[in-house]
Amino acid sequence: MRLRSLHLCVITDPELARGRDHVAITEAALSGGADMIQLRDKTGSLRDLLPQARAIQALCRARPALFIVNDRLDLALAAGADGVHVGQDDLPAEAARRLLGPGRILGVSTHSREQAEAARAAGADYIGFGPMFPTGTKETGYTPRGLEGLREARAAVSLPILAIGGITLENVAAVIGAGATAPAVISAIVAAPDIAAATAAFRKCVATARALAKPRPASQGHRGLP
Amino acid sequence: MRLRSLHLCVITDPELARGRDHVAITEAALSGGADMIQLRDKTGSLRDLLPQARAIQALCRARPALFIVNDRLDLALAAGADGVHVGQDDLPAEAARRLLGPGRILGVSTHSREQAEAARAAGADYIGFGPMFPTGTKETGYTPRGLEGLREARAAVSLPILAIGGITLENVAAVIGAGATAPAVISAIVAAPDIAAATAAFRKCVATARALAKPRPASQGHRGLP
Repeated sequence: MRLRSLHLCVITDPELARGRDHVAITEAALSGGADMIQLRDKTGSLRDLLPQARAIQALCRARPALFIVNDRLDLALAAGADGVHVGQDDLPAEAARRLLGPGRILGVSTHSREQAEAARAAGADYIGFGPMFPTGTKETGYTPRGLEGLREARAAVSLPILAIGGITLENVAAVIGAGATAPAVISAIVAAPDIAAATAAFRKCVATARALAKPRPASQGHRGLP
Repeated sequence: MRLRSLHLCVITDPELARGRDHVAITEAALSGGADMIQLRDKTGSLRDLLPQARAIQALCRARPALFIVNDRLDLALAAGADGVHVGQDDLPAEAARRLLGPGRILGVSTHSREQAEAARAAGADYIGFGPMFPTGTKETGYTPRGLEGLREARAAVSLPILAIGGITLENVAAVIGAGATAPAVISAIVAAPDIAAATAAFRKCVATARALAKPRPASQGHRGLP
């Protein structure tokens, strides 16, 4: 599973999930085609989260999909996750990189070109970028960055970019077109009545948008022409 | 610094500390004679806590005193702390032990003889035991264990025991007499107007109580007799 080939990261926020827990969200999201699961839980106890994280790790390994833990690097290590995702208020990326070692994935939330460049310099394997659009999810207080902000980040770093924040079936194609590797989705998927169906719909939109956005090999003609 | 020779652990809870931060509490507590500092912060961001933890680590190393981080094993590793302290809702002790390796200290909060034995089996280097008495600090909801509970834990495990919860200058001698290695103190020290003076008073009480509680060498006569 290479980061550059990712289609869709689903973030398992239980507050929006109508009572479904992290494992239930993961099972549905994987069956719908998510290829990265990020466990995010700012309030649960690690005693409760560790068994869930281990179950998610096994589900992702079997698929295969990548399993990333938000913020809690200790939980990521204890569960044998593929990596950790840190925000600008979490463990600094340099420290996380050092603790993770080279074998695990480090993702870093960024909200500007400068933060994207700093994350790359600190050893991030991918960056989150956003919020793209207004969102119902409780967020960091940053104003939406929009497609133009994403294009700036895309021009600044060659890392895979997971765009986040207010991404829907209506705007995801534009987000891919502006340079995102894949979307990271919370509310539009975990709050949906049918998580698997919502995931599958996103996955299909992303695949279509990527096929359109991808430069064709030279032998098949110029970019954008059939 | 051996755990068995500890006199006093001060837990840096900023909610009670009249605006003094973790580093300020640590400086005052070390100057008053604390020989273990536990950084406890359930709400602060790691971005803010890491520089404080690094400063505390340097202060403790210079003294020397032990520096333990509550709950956040990732912060402990990033700051180069001497160890981590986990509660019954935190990372399970087995997982913490594995991630810490043998070179760092693992402390585990326990509230019963059974939990004390489980912590020992999981590889704890010391246990916290309590709450001893009613306490103003927000706690786990356990009822006070009292001196009798402490004696049971002391009889069950030979690990160093840090007694916690409602310990004051009035009752600390009894706590040492019942088998605690040292007290772990929050509110009676960090809420005091003069943290250094409050620490020094505790340290003196502990030293006196330990001298009384310690069995005399055989050549000097029977225990408790001059």
